[in-house]
Amino acid sequence: EHPCKRFVLYYHDILFDGSDVANATSATIANETKLGDFKFGKLVVFDDPMTKDNHLHSPAVARAQGFYFYDMKSDYNSWFAYTLVFNSTEQKGTLNIMGADIMAAQTRDFSIVGGTGDFFMARGIATIETDTFQGAKYFRLKMDIKLYECY
Amino acid sequence: EHPCKRFVLYYHDILFDGSDVANATSATIANETKLGDFKFGKLVVFDDPMTKDNHLHSPAVARAQGFYFYDMKSDYNSWFAYTLVFNSTEQKGTLNIMGADIMAAQTRDFSIVGGTGDFFMARGIATIETDTFQGAKYFRLKMDIKLYECY
Amino acid sequence: EHPCKRFVLYYHDILFDGSDVANATSATIANETKLGDFKFGKLVVFDDPMTKDNHLHSPAVARAQGFYFYDMKSDYNSWFAYTLVFNSTEQKGTLNIMGADIMAAQTRDFSIVGGTGDFFMARGIATIETDTFQGAKYFRLKMDIKLYECY
Repeated sequence: EHPCKRFVLYYHDILFDGSDVANATSATIANETKLGDFKFGKLVVFDDPMTKDNHLHSPAVARAQGFYFYDMKSDYNSWFAYTLVFNSTEQKGTLNIMGADIMAAQTRDFSIVGGTGDFFMARGIATIETDTFQGAKYFRLKMDIKLYECY
Repeated sequence: EHPCKRFVLYYHDILFDGSDVANATSATIANETKLGDFKFGKLVVFDDPMTKDNHLHSPAVARAQGFYFYDMKSDYNSWFAYTLVFNSTEQKGTLNIMGADIMAAQTRDFSIVGGTGDFFMARGIATIETDTFQGAKYFRLKMDIKLYECY
Repeated sequence: EHPCKRFVLYYHDILFDGSDVANATSATIANETKLGDFKFGKLVVFDDPMTKDNHLHSPAVARAQGFYFYDMKSDYNSWFAYTLVFNSTEQKGTLNIMGADIMAAQTRDFSIVGGTGDFFMARGIATIETDTFQGAKYFRLKMDIKLYECY
């Protein structure tokens, strides 16, 4: 099936370490538990810039606002729910997204469960790929946004 | 596009202060972080009454059960996911809703991503407007529920 | 209306008590508040096995990854969001689900808001029933998965 709309954005997450308020874009709000060695239960809230290429300092064309948490005791694995917020001359509106981030897989699919504004009532799939992972501090995801229901 | 069903409800949130069990309808479960001065990361679980007019003590025609958290370091901004639970002679069923509460905007749109019972498989948009905000203790949102997919 | 696809799975949740890393499948990440006596605000992250019958040790045909929290001050009641992750020769893909777990009702309905892989763009209803509840340690839910939109 062909998407009625498709574009790629990069998600940049800089986790707050307690002092870098100016740079950080996310913060831990519940600490990892002792269930395994892979941060099970660590919960992070984010307001992350989305850019058209994979450069952190490129202009943000949207924000990703939401949360993720780690949820596996035998490996790194996580779960996301968030909203892409567009507020430019080019596009205004939101896309609401949720899904399992099966980090062991090269790519994984989230569901785009709704949209507003220019994305009124949209549905689709966001295919995620880790672009870089730099320890606890910074990671970047490539998000291939494919809408299959457009109005 | 015209909604196949539309109604307005008011959401009342009374945040638990540690002692007012009788009145409170929500409670903080993760405290704000030090990422900025706008409660970034504060996470609240709620079971809030929904009324047809904007009086707190009007009969509740539904409950809103879910959570919100603050997610911006430079201003107040939040994110919601919740279920409207209807259980009256008039209506039985649920609507599931999520979205970014872009508090800087006069109105903002959440996605209604599914429904059950009398709202079987519904989708739509909930347009939110702050009706009053009284410090940390009480706020009220007007929710304009518009369903565009009805079965 | 008839589902285009339907199957029943059992969800098994074994809450981590701080020491049973080998058996536990979920962990508390935010403690209950003092708003009432029904664990209001207790937040649990899970990676739970899903089986075809109600035996905990039957082969898992999927994982349920997500979270629930308690959200009522006058009775037990909770709210869920999770992904069913299928990764077998039989089925690959995910279903994304959210809804109010109105525990006072014999059965309650969650919304299946999206799917990926073999469940591409699916929507439907998951009807939940408590199969057993053994204190804080273990509970099991029967989930009747009914898809009404299949691609």
